[in-house]
Amino acid sequence: MKIAIPKERRANELRVAASPETVKKFLALGAEVVVETGAGLGSAITDEAFAAAGATIAPDAAAALRDADLVLKVQRPIGPGEGGVNEIALMKRGATLVAILSPHADAARVKAYADAGIDAFAMEFMPRITRAQSMDVLSSQANLAGYRAVLEAANEFGRAFPMMMTAAGTVPPARAFIMGVGVAGLQAIATAKRLGAVVSATDVRPATKEQVESLGGTFIAVMDEEFQQAQTAGGYAKEMSAAYQEKQRALVAETIRKQDIVITTALIPGRKAPVLVTDEMLRTMKPGAVVVDMAVEQGGNVEGSVPGEVVRKYGVTIVGRVNLPSRIAVDASALYARNLLAFLTPFIDKDRKALAFNWDDEVVKGTALTRGGQVVHPAFAPAAPAP
Amino acid sequence: MKIAIPKERRANELRVAASPETVKKFLALGAEVVVETGAGLGSAITDEAFAAAGATIAPDAAAALRDADLVLKVQRPIGPGEGGVNEIALMKRGATLVAILSPHADAARVKAYADAGIDAFAMEFMPRITRAQSMDVLSSQANLAGYRAVLEAANEFGRAFPMMMTAAGTVPPARAFIMGVGVAGLQAIATAKRLGAVVSATDVRPATKEQVESLGGTFIAVMDEEFQQAQTAGGYAKEMSAAYQEKQRALVAETIRKQDIVITTALIPGRKAPVLVTDEMLRTMKPGAVVVDMAVEQGGNVEGSVPGEVVRKYGVTIVGRVNLPSRIAVDASALYARNLLAFLTPFIDKDRKALAFNWDDEVVKGTALTRGGQVVHPAFAPAAPAP
Repeated sequence: MKIAIPKERRANELRVAASPETVKKFLALGAEVVVETGAGLGSAITDEAFAAAGATIAPDAAAALRDADLVLKVQRPIGPGEGGVNEIALMKRGATLVAILSPHADAARVKAYADAGIDAFAMEFMPRITRAQSMDVLSSQANLAGYRAVLEAANEFGRAFPMMMTAAGTVPPARAFIMGVGVAGLQAIATAKRLGAVVSATDVRPATKEQVESLGGTFIAVMDEEFQQAQTAGGYAKEMSAAYQEKQRALVAETIRKQDIVITTALIPGRKAPVLVTDEMLRTMKPGAVVVDMAVEQGGNVEGSVPGEVVRKYGVTIVGRVNLPSRIAVDASALYARNLLAFLTPFIDKDRKALAFNWDDEVVKGTALTRGGQVVHPAFAPAAPAP
Repeated sequence: MKIAIPKERRANELRVAASPETVKKFLALGAEVVVETGAGLGSAITDEAFAAAGATIAPDAAAALRDADLVLKVQRPIGPGEGGVNEIALMKRGATLVAILSPHADAARVKAYADAGIDAFAMEFMPRITRAQSMDVLSSQANLAGYRAVLEAANEFGRAFPMMMTAAGTVPPARAFIMGVGVAGLQAIATAKRLGAVVSATDVRPATKEQVESLGGTFIAVMDEEFQQAQTAGGYAKEMSAAYQEKQRALVAETIRKQDIVITTALIPGRKAPVLVTDEMLRTMKPGAVVVDMAVEQGGNVEGSVPGEVVRKYGVTIVGRVNLPSRIAVDASALYARNLLAFLTPFIDKDRKALAFNWDDEVVKGTALTRGGQVVHPAFAPAAPAP
């Protein structure tokens, strides 16, 4: 069984889907691992380090992908018409592809995998069940993105986060407000707190109040009846009523006015991100304040944020960095690689040296987009013929 | 008495020599304050904020400097042949200039101030006495630079500083080594520690051992007899013997090999900075490690560091950012402005609304370069004629 680790080719992507640690583990399971030369460099993993772990180094994508049974990637492969190497064309029929495939952003691609005979697994669809936590790429990457978002803010901020008592007088601590208390938000709270800021946070899910407070933050929300009921089974934020949103918006506007740092993390799966910070709110902020929009690639939580850019508006800096996990690529790759290893290990038949998915397993059903030339994921499968 | 605050014109300089707070204080002392338009923008201070504090906004440097009795700047003014506005020519004879004048870097300039009839004070020569701590611009700026140096490191580092225990496994904490435990080094230790790194530090002054340990760092040095004796009266590091340096270098080399982050802060006043991290040491470091050279503008503590650049060598990132205080300009300006206020307040005659320096005061004698057309500072005054 040949596992291929091609170099990531999309813009702003420094991660890689394997580490020397996971290469060793795959070898112990009977696989052969081929890594494209330079695949790890963005994550400070040299070809030598991969080779020392037992991988073979391939000179290019074609050599890495040729006859590979299993292809591990971070982002979806480059397809026809995208320019450069057509990675899909280099994969054999019957190959298995495991990556963050972003099928909602590129639904036509799902059928292309089926047509090419590629069994494609979208890691971001991993069910949020206890057993699958170690396979949850959204969590592992969001955690690091939350840390990185605070660094991005600190980097653009003209003041220090901690209070400093100096001979020339006291520097007050920065006030940081984290909007959305998921995995990214929690790590942002923890990091801002660590750096010395006075931290507050908001979320529409009542369960987050205690989490914020346990990290030393102040919880800010309109805590009415609707708020008490708000949380979906999947643990995501529910969309709230217009009336609640209006009350919450007023409270948030009042809070934002006093902040030095605002970090927004609100995503609704498969939909455009909600606007949390309006242009009107930006106008009320202090000169020198910094807003980091972690949802900038999904339409943005902040009016005026631009993907990939740092924008100044009304004296406020709006940070729209894309792919924050890639901006902390060494750890992001290490955890992502472990997520893939945890997902795949139970499905590698050590004796036959082959993949052996249990297609009834929740983690397989949840993530499989295509199988044997067919689109199988319910969100993308063609509608059943009328009876 | 007219005080002028011109905009800083040198590259990479976002600071300003006054804040709304100090403007108010100078007005209360009977002065008039004129700020050049835009002077505060790099430090998030708008013209409106200066005007609200009582300053007059001047449309350009000429209007700001015209007839000013006292000129407050961060860096030395632009002189003839430097291109752009000749700020020296815009100052009247008899004006007083207070700034970080870097006379060692530009000794000819000292005579130029005298010839122009400008009484020039170099704030970086402030004596290190208890009474002058609130006037000590080197300390106030070095403190913020130390904080900023850690952010620069974290920004370039592909991993998180703190240990993170995640569902996909544990991320180990970063190991940070701070070389030189002055004001900048101490703040770097505190900041790296705050962010979650495992921190160690070294210095040739024995008194620093306790300081490092009190911040939660590990002290690393060859602690022999020479080490016990090493500290100048001024609190600066003394130059050590070749034998000591050799022993210390071996210990440091062994320490550096294991680090993720190295921050060097070693300066010897008026001399080229010592090389602490050699090319040979860089070769032994881990891929992905980050070295920040805080002495890069004084010749550098790190072989291969380049002023203003981020260089990659042997998989190690060498950060040579210049003017770190300017990269945290809001706080740096606020503290710098307070330093100037503290220095000048005792020498403003409120009744006569005029400067009245006590030329016998240690803080005046220490910082005055020129007076009444003569170079008066002992380090720059012409040698007395032979008897």
